[in-house]
Amino acid sequence: MKNNKLVIVGVGHVGSQVLTDALALNLFAEIAVIDQDREKAEGEALDGSHITPFTYCPNTELYAADYDTCKDADVIIVAAGPSVQKDAQFQDRGTLIGKNVSVIREVMAGISNYTKDAIIIFITNPLDSMVYLAGNFFDYPKNRIFGTGTCLDSARFRKIVANKYGVDPKSVHGYMLGEHGSTAFPVWSLLNIEGIGINRLDDYFSLDTPLDKEQIAQNVVETGFDILHLKGWTNSGVAMAACTLAKAVMLDEHSIFPVSTTLNGEYGLSEVALSLPCVIGRQGVEKRLAVPLDEDELGKLRATADSIRGTMKIGGLIKS
Amino acid sequence: MKNNKLVIVGVGHVGSQVLTDALALNLFAEIAVIDQDREKAEGEALDGSHITPFTYCPNTELYAADYDTCKDADVIIVAAGPSVQKDAQFQDRGTLIGKNVSVIREVMAGISNYTKDAIIIFITNPLDSMVYLAGNFFDYPKNRIFGTGTCLDSARFRKIVANKYGVDPKSVHGYMLGEHGSTAFPVWSLLNIEGIGINRLDDYFSLDTPLDKEQIAQNVVETGFDILHLKGWTNSGVAMAACTLAKAVMLDEHSIFPVSTTLNGEYGLSEVALSLPCVIGRQGVEKRLAVPLDEDELGKLRATADSIRGTMKIGGLIKS
Amino acid sequence: MKNNKLVIVGVGHVGSQVLTDALALNLFAEIAVIDQDREKAEGEALDGSHITPFTYCPNTELYAADYDTCKDADVIIVAAGPSVQKDAQFQDRGTLIGKNVSVIREVMAGISNYTKDAIIIFITNPLDSMVYLAGNFFDYPKNRIFGTGTCLDSARFRKIVANKYGVDPKSVHGYMLGEHGSTAFPVWSLLNIEGIGINRLDDYFSLDTPLDKEQIAQNVVETGFDILHLKGWTNSGVAMAACTLAKAVMLDEHSIFPVSTTLNGEYGLSEVALSLPCVIGRQGVEKRLAVPLDEDELGKLRATADSIRGTMKIGGLIKS
Amino acid sequence: MKNNKLVIVGVGHVGSQVLTDALALNLFAEIAVIDQDREKAEGEALDGSHITPFTYCPNTELYAADYDTCKDADVIIVAAGPSVQKDAQFQDRGTLIGKNVSVIREVMAGISNYTKDAIIIFITNPLDSMVYLAGNFFDYPKNRIFGTGTCLDSARFRKIVANKYGVDPKSVHGYMLGEHGSTAFPVWSLLNIEGIGINRLDDYFSLDTPLDKEQIAQNVVETGFDILHLKGWTNSGVAMAACTLAKAVMLDEHSIFPVSTTLNGEYGLSEVALSLPCVIGRQGVEKRLAVPLDEDELGKLRATADSIRGTMKIGGLIKS
Repeated sequence: MKNNKLVIVGVGHVGSQVLTDALALNLFAEIAVIDQDREKAEGEALDGSHITPFTYCPNTELYAADYDTCKDADVIIVAAGPSVQKDAQFQDRGTLIGKNVSVIREVMAGISNYTKDAIIIFITNPLDSMVYLAGNFFDYPKNRIFGTGTCLDSARFRKIVANKYGVDPKSVHGYMLGEHGSTAFPVWSLLNIEGIGINRLDDYFSLDTPLDKEQIAQNVVETGFDILHLKGWTNSGVAMAACTLAKAVMLDEHSIFPVSTTLNGEYGLSEVALSLPCVIGRQGVEKRLAVPLDEDELGKLRATADSIRGTMKIGGLIKS
Repeated sequence: MKNNKLVIVGVGHVGSQVLTDALALNLFAEIAVIDQDREKAEGEALDGSHITPFTYCPNTELYAADYDTCKDADVIIVAAGPSVQKDAQFQDRGTLIGKNVSVIREVMAGISNYTKDAIIIFITNPLDSMVYLAGNFFDYPKNRIFGTGTCLDSARFRKIVANKYGVDPKSVHGYMLGEHGSTAFPVWSLLNIEGIGINRLDDYFSLDTPLDKEQIAQNVVETGFDILHLKGWTNSGVAMAACTLAKAVMLDEHSIFPVSTTLNGEYGLSEVALSLPCVIGRQGVEKRLAVPLDEDELGKLRATADSIRGTMKIGGLIKS
Repeated sequence: MKNNKLVIVGVGHVGSQVLTDALALNLFAEIAVIDQDREKAEGEALDGSHITPFTYCPNTELYAADYDTCKDADVIIVAAGPSVQKDAQFQDRGTLIGKNVSVIREVMAGISNYTKDAIIIFITNPLDSMVYLAGNFFDYPKNRIFGTGTCLDSARFRKIVANKYGVDPKSVHGYMLGEHGSTAFPVWSLLNIEGIGINRLDDYFSLDTPLDKEQIAQNVVETGFDILHLKGWTNSGVAMAACTLAKAVMLDEHSIFPVSTTLNGEYGLSEVALSLPCVIGRQGVEKRLAVPLDEDELGKLRATADSIRGTMKIGGLIKS
Repeated sequence: MKNNKLVIVGVGHVGSQVLTDALALNLFAEIAVIDQDREKAEGEALDGSHITPFTYCPNTELYAADYDTCKDADVIIVAAGPSVQKDAQFQDRGTLIGKNVSVIREVMAGISNYTKDAIIIFITNPLDSMVYLAGNFFDYPKNRIFGTGTCLDSARFRKIVANKYGVDPKSVHGYMLGEHGSTAFPVWSLLNIEGIGINRLDDYFSLDTPLDKEQIAQNVVETGFDILHLKGWTNSGVAMAACTLAKAVMLDEHSIFPVSTTLNGEYGLSEVALSLPCVIGRQGVEKRLAVPLDEDELGKLRATADSIRGTMKIGGLIKS
């Protein structure tokens, strides 16, 4: 009888938000925190532990640990490495990869020394390259590794569309696919508000200005940079993505989310990781859905795959 | 500064389940219970109050009351009246209406004496006739009255489809419309699993036997009767429908649900209440969506409207 | 990687409420339901499964099953057997035991054929006798068996005291010990409202009438019968007790609750099961606390132990 | 019919954590964010809004605003002003007060222009001086203003004691009183683990080393500084304190928490704000409990009052 256990690797702005959201799930008996800055890990675990006396908070055991803690983990969320910071050297994801390839190599070496059973959810950017790296160089079961991918881009997309029509974003069904980042593209052909497709939406909702697809796609990408410039980092959305996925795993929900995995021939693509809708359950990625795309979307898919490959090449993950 | 307050009218199998689910929302400071059997109301309030000392339960104030308690209610959920019971005289909704018209007349008289501000959510069957009665004979603001309608039929529909494909029903988007009951019809033309329409689903999920639309539509209707015969009544699904709607109201979510309201010309229909997807928020029904239906579905819509009208005639709500 | 799994044995009024509360925990990937009336089990599982499409409900897998489902259960909650019903032959717990000894023998035989790992939480009455039976005749690890015991009596006690002083019962710390039933006694000497003992409480809260300890002790016992007569059964409080304990187990909370276990010399008592405060975690009962009692309380403890033994003798569990 | 509405003033490390925790309460339809750095407020609101599309997150409306947003707020949580930062000029609370008196003057002027109905919960340090300032210079109803006070110190105290005995801190009942800060003192005479007082605890739990009261009191104060040095700030515990209090207000729970209010003769003290156990409900502070203290504790209470007064004098809030 083992405890439900989460390990968080990296507790910067994102990882510490993951910790907060994960505690609120009321799902884990133990949460272990790993950070190369051991003091930071200890600080976050200690601070977080002070919520346990409050009325509605579970008595989750929180502690800083080394990689050996992974041996009995159910889920590992990896938010290690520098992120794209405001005014920082890592604004560019191409530059970022140089640093984070070595971070993730170390993380995966650390984890895979102790377990190949845990489901690993990646947040570290450039996300798709990191997922490719983790999934293809460490003999870790492929279905147990995925990245939050375009879950965040899709949340932003759904929120922007929802705001336009004045409805709950949970009533807006759709997603961005491809790279987690600037080449992600909205799948307009499948977007719907409770079944009403994009082309018919304006018959049902009177808008001040008609929906401008290009503008919205651009807004989705820009809103991340807006947050970055407004508050200095982004963390709320992506942390909730990771924790929603962790819950889907722990409760074996078979829910569909656009997460990043290494493709295996879908749309003629392989040797690249990017986000497609996937069924997520206790075994990790149960199924990858190469959803029907129109010509324009297929073009954008190829372009985003090329962009990711470009980043991977810079990072030395695939040959030029 | 008033308390968040729910009133539940009728605490039989359904109303008492509503009480349980409503307590779990952590959203109401007060829940008042009205039942013509005052002892039953007191019993449910007293029993429910004994959860408040437990660690994760809010200290909601629970009490039996008369209709004057409605005066400061935010939401009122009406589950009064006999339901379609196993082996009972009320198996037939036509028979049931005779009884429940007088029940709902009394309930609406009781409520509207004290408030016209609360959002009233109906569960009492035959649901659509009850919504029509409540919404058209008591000078109560129309947008503040609706019925759980085909929320339950839709949940069953989504669950059955989800089981077929092995996914979370929350990833299945679609609904049954029309009557809450045997003439409800699935809107296959809008059903999708994260954007993939019904006609393409079988390309993505390998099924033992192909999807049989007629069979599934029939299963949705039958599953209610199955539960009725297996356990003697149904309550879990419909109580959660009512509480999900109550939460959408209280948090002003603008979420879309298929609920029953009196139509006002949609699809050429009026003088009938039935379920269409509606935007639900703090003001009640904010918008009714006459979603695009195909010819077959339009025929079923007209048939279900006729069926509801037939019931209403038996109940004396409209002229023959 | 196994699923978090709960098994509920017996889905009458209590067991079906346990099912509802357990779903709301968002903690179990699977809930299996066993009932000697297989149709009832199927009906409850089917009805409960229709909440899974609703926005805030997890996609827990619900199903009716036989005892072999226990093999990978984490927690088993036993609510099998007739309960003390209004106007029924089982009003008397002495009579009830004749029936329920055979019920629990069958249940324990069923469970222990398939697992000795699960934590088993008993609700079936007469509770303490059932716990004794389960814990002493089936070679099941003793710490993995306990009964909700006086958790419910204590909740009622705390609620009544809380009402008297106008505070949240979660701010009232104290318990009833001994038998779950009419000889349970309040431990006044340890009761406190955030540290203020009973003898000083009236200095802080002005009461219309002074606290009458005897009256309150009597109210606690009577409130159960009141509910029984008002609504026909009791289920809300005890189901929440069982689910709060299940959560403490699953999240390894090390929380202290007054639960029923077989004593091992505490206060000179053995060969009897009754409720003392116990530390509850992933291993079940981690520690039993023979809290300091005053003379009067010790007398009541001996009396309640005698009463339980009397019931056990009637049930043939110990010799006369 | 107004929305449940929270306003957060100040979204630095603490306020942004409050935002995260408040969203997880599923209790507010609207959360408005005010910060003198408008961009920061917009960034936090925008980032937070991206959780609303995720499955289990409510569609709370989040936005940056000015003080006029307070006019229909139910609760306002004030986390404005610089906090005691690592290696910063504000390490010392005496220095800090110079800055934060002007911050809170501005905040209270802003709020009280638009409402005197909202319950205001203060977090800004030096907490007790800020509560005194807000409660005595702005003609705001006194019972509607309080500070998180020693809720955090008490949580740390309970957690440390709980760790010592290996139990859930929610089973440890007790508190630190007085100043939120270094002169807060544990009320050992009332501390209990489910009724077992401190002097008898060691009979029930075998400890490696006996409980050292002085050491623990010191640990409580030090753990805050430890977190500060380990992670650079503290926010998890205090944000949960504020949100637990906000929930107690919104659900009118009448729960008892050690919060800071201006005393009115309790223990002979007035013209000072400090933490005593208070009953918290929809009206704010419903009752202040001058709990029985022993001689040593009374001495510490006077000392902590003197310390707070010393800080207030530095801040010019009372005369020398």
